[in-house]
Amino acid sequence: MSAAPALRAEGPLALVCGGGSLPLAVADLVVARGRPVVLFPLHGAADPQSGARYPHHWLYLGQLGKFSRLARAAGCRDVVFIGSLVRPAFWKMRFDLTALMLLPRIAAAFHGGDDHLLSNVSRLVEQQGFRLLGAHDVAPEILVPQGALGRVQSTERDHADIALGFDYLCAAGPFDIGQAVVVADKHVLAVEAAEGTDQMLARVAQLRANGRIGTAKGVGVLVKAPKPNQDRRFDLPSVGPQTVEGVVRAGLAGIAVAAGETVIAEPDRLVAAADAGGIFVVGAPTGLKR
Amino acid sequence: MSAAPALRAEGPLALVCGGGSLPLAVADLVVARGRPVVLFPLHGAADPQSGARYPHHWLYLGQLGKFSRLARAAGCRDVVFIGSLVRPAFWKMRFDLTALMLLPRIAAAFHGGDDHLLSNVSRLVEQQGFRLLGAHDVAPEILVPQGALGRVQSTERDHADIALGFDYLCAAGPFDIGQAVVVADKHVLAVEAAEGTDQMLARVAQLRANGRIGTAKGVGVLVKAPKPNQDRRFDLPSVGPQTVEGVVRAGLAGIAVAAGETVIAEPDRLVAAADAGGIFVVGAPTGLKR
Repeated sequence: MSAAPALRAEGPLALVCGGGSLPLAVADLVVARGRPVVLFPLHGAADPQSGARYPHHWLYLGQLGKFSRLARAAGCRDVVFIGSLVRPAFWKMRFDLTALMLLPRIAAAFHGGDDHLLSNVSRLVEQQGFRLLGAHDVAPEILVPQGALGRVQSTERDHADIALGFDYLCAAGPFDIGQAVVVADKHVLAVEAAEGTDQMLARVAQLRANGRIGTAKGVGVLVKAPKPNQDRRFDLPSVGPQTVEGVVRAGLAGIAVAAGETVIAEPDRLVAAADAGGIFVVGAPTGLKR
Repeated sequence: MSAAPALRAEGPLALVCGGGSLPLAVADLVVARGRPVVLFPLHGAADPQSGARYPHHWLYLGQLGKFSRLARAAGCRDVVFIGSLVRPAFWKMRFDLTALMLLPRIAAAFHGGDDHLLSNVSRLVEQQGFRLLGAHDVAPEILVPQGALGRVQSTERDHADIALGFDYLCAAGPFDIGQAVVVADKHVLAVEAAEGTDQMLARVAQLRANGRIGTAKGVGVLVKAPKPNQDRRFDLPSVGPQTVEGVVRAGLAGIAVAAGETVIAEPDRLVAAADAGGIFVVGAPTGLKR
């Protein structure tokens, strides 16, 4: 690859891996571009297969010193955090010496919302001499493009629900809540907070099974977007085949995400699942909607 | 009672009864003030015992003509809607002739959020010649006063969570979502939408059982308040012993509601449950917080 020498000068990329299929997908994309990777899968979160293909070191949350030492020894300067991570209980973390020296700051980071936590974590990592990048900086293919991803198209009615969903997520942004909402016929059915998107969709399916949803099956949209002031290097909203399955079970019409600001895991499987389930998946221009 | 003659001139009060213990409690309070009541319990929602003590006529949702005829025959001019009501599926309603004549307007009312639905329903009832009142207009005792209701007091940390909860509910108001949120250590854990408060609390209990809540047991507040532009004659937020039990199971510190804008069902049982569970219940002045 002609770009390889320039990329090699950057050194290998350190990938701190949370849950889901995205971390390994990003690793593959980065390696395909000619840049080596070193994986740091997190115990309790990352895919157990994370060590199969690339150099790797398993970490417990809180092992900041171990991470810094190993990443530096591998010649890494750039770090990407990728994959889902349940907000851990403070007392369940394992602090190594470096982390212990920073404990007051880490403890302070734990008070307040996720954005607050993440911006503090990123500052700690950068103070160790690393540069923190977003997964989409090293693998832009993972971002959802504008337009329909599968065969099914959204309708005018869906567009009204999508616009309301984006408006809500924008208004709720300052409160550092979830990144997703379900809107059906201009009625907000469910708002995501600590439970995550999959569990919110399961709730909608349950409400429908109990006859508590007034709109017909096939009406309603899962809308996802990053919070207005979110640090894009962390925790962009993501969709994958599992999201599609949840939307089908919830009896909704489709999924709308912020184009260029949402990460897609396993795009081929996602599109196949959406087509099979008869739902649309659309990347919407948030410039128009927010 | 000396006020009885003046009250009698108003005629009996028509109480359209949804679910929960509040409708019969309100009936008792109104009768204790010397005004007779006629109950209109709703099939599928109201307590099956609704007919035990007072004149009553069971209704299906959509029987606007039957309601108007029977309420008029009983000499009622004032109507109160009270009790919980799950948003019904449009096609599950039973429309009588009067409702059928108004069907386009009723169908239109079903598009959009609950506030929209309720304001349309109230217009339909008023067009039948009735005056729609709030339950607190006829039984002001049901409103939560300012201050702590039980023995347990809220702390400074709780006050920060309460303020954040009221701020969120205010910001989410235009979206006609739920009236409740759970905030723990300035982190929004759960937002209520179509599922209702009890189910949201069960979700928090489940998240805690799964180790997915970062804050310790005994931290966090259920915050309830009416939406900023809500028609106070309908659907003021309510708390009761069941809410207290849900908060105890969710491992939270207490409950904060908008003083003077929240309805309390079975206050004695609520206070006893809160004291036994070691949680606070406080009516907070929204003037300071919203």
